[in-house]
Amino acid sequence: MFIELLRTRQRRQSSLLCIGIDPDPARIPAQLGSGVDGLRAFCRAIVDATADLACALKPNSAFFEAYGPAGFAVLQELIAQAPPELPIILDVKRGDIGSTAAAYATACFDQLGAHAVTLNPLLGSDSLAPFLNRAERGCFVLCRTSNPGAADLQDLLLADGRPFYLALAELARDRWNANANLGLVVGATIPDQLRLVRQACPGLPLLVPGIGSQGGDLPATLAAGLDASGAGLIINASRSILYASNGPDFAAAARREAQALRDGINHYRALA
Amino acid sequence: MFIELLRTRQRRQSSLLCIGIDPDPARIPAQLGSGVDGLRAFCRAIVDATADLACALKPNSAFFEAYGPAGFAVLQELIAQAPPELPIILDVKRGDIGSTAAAYATACFDQLGAHAVTLNPLLGSDSLAPFLNRAERGCFVLCRTSNPGAADLQDLLLADGRPFYLALAELARDRWNANANLGLVVGATIPDQLRLVRQACPGLPLLVPGIGSQGGDLPATLAAGLDASGAGLIINASRSILYASNGPDFAAAARREAQALRDGINHYRALA
Repeated sequence: MFIELLRTRQRRQSSLLCIGIDPDPARIPAQLGSGVDGLRAFCRAIVDATADLACALKPNSAFFEAYGPAGFAVLQELIAQAPPELPIILDVKRGDIGSTAAAYATACFDQLGAHAVTLNPLLGSDSLAPFLNRAERGCFVLCRTSNPGAADLQDLLLADGRPFYLALAELARDRWNANANLGLVVGATIPDQLRLVRQACPGLPLLVPGIGSQGGDLPATLAAGLDASGAGLIINASRSILYASNGPDFAAAARREAQALRDGINHYRALA
Repeated sequence: MFIELLRTRQRRQSSLLCIGIDPDPARIPAQLGSGVDGLRAFCRAIVDATADLACALKPNSAFFEAYGPAGFAVLQELIAQAPPELPIILDVKRGDIGSTAAAYATACFDQLGAHAVTLNPLLGSDSLAPFLNRAERGCFVLCRTSNPGAADLQDLLLADGRPFYLALAELARDRWNANANLGLVVGATIPDQLRLVRQACPGLPLLVPGIGSQGGDLPATLAAGLDASGAGLIINASRSILYASNGPDFAAAARREAQALRDGINHYRALA
């Protein structure tokens, strides 16, 4: 079960930190080589340098697809070579009609071997079912994202007085979690919204991007998002760790940055 | 410009029919071989047999990703080998924060070579910008989809009295179409909703799935969705054409089915 794998990892490594693998070709240190060789070497070095500090790894499919079929193969290899006790959350944000969603589930879980995925729920129940039905895997459904444009649709006010993202959170809680394998994606950029989602969904794991490059506030995020047991959060950082240095010391710099963030999370967690 | 390529094709071939390439491994005729060999042979045979009847081809990325990296390579090859005057709408339904969306745009337009894509707008303006900024390419934004679960979120009633999908259509019309390269995806399964979107957006091309296997009503779809010029629709059918026969005559059967649908569309179009 993914959720158990994640909780065990969080406990054993004393970490709520998730490391997002978003390899931007323009920022991969030149000495690693170009093309997919540089991509492969960069990802491997980052994982080797930081994995023990992380409760999960979140490779983002887009950055591998941008290299074409060979990049897709590097993603597959990266997941296959990761430590088996390290949960892999594949960031794909897929969402399509049922028959297509089933093909995406095959791609993510069986071809790529991810333990969990991120999903876009705009197409509703039947678009999520092929993923949620895989009870041993995890599904993080987008709820309120961390980007500037999120407000365009996710914050629209419904006739019943709720904002759209809260209606979505309640739907997820009440109808999509029959296998207890669902979490929500809620950005760190607006802690008040994170608090409302936590109040509505006290038992759901929340995957929280937006710390680091996107400017989310760490103490406010933890105060708003921790569950009653002082856990229930997966705090993701990507660019601030991956590109801490673009020199030959990039891996050591990434490790320092990851360690500082893991320790910072634990510091504020103890205070919350 | 994608829209011009599409309109020229629709006029020259007298066709509003889009052929969706959703290759399900369980339904590829056994005589074509197994794995990616069967996939490649099947897609090529379907395109050869039907392309002249179509205004566009809509390969669905999920069904290629389900084969792993080699399937992604078949998708790339399929697009590269399609007739250059045939618009390729890559059905990917991507949607992510800006920096990630830029990587997806590279994957879809530069690596895979699509003329247009489908996009999921849940993350708002900055998630669409890297695609929309490519003025020469087309972007079909999900508005009201054809699947049973679509109602879960897309039909939610807003405080201002509009359903969510209509608010989305108006946002697309007013804010996202600066480059005149945007269309909407609106399912054929509920013609009344298609009519409302057409009334709100008289000038936008509408990509309409749901005819064929999903049970959409062709005359009602055309009556509700045609624009003032008697065009503005791209009517997609996938499974009803691809799997018209699973015997050695599959390609001829696909052609018969595509021809019947193209002619049926033109028949009801003349009456509308």
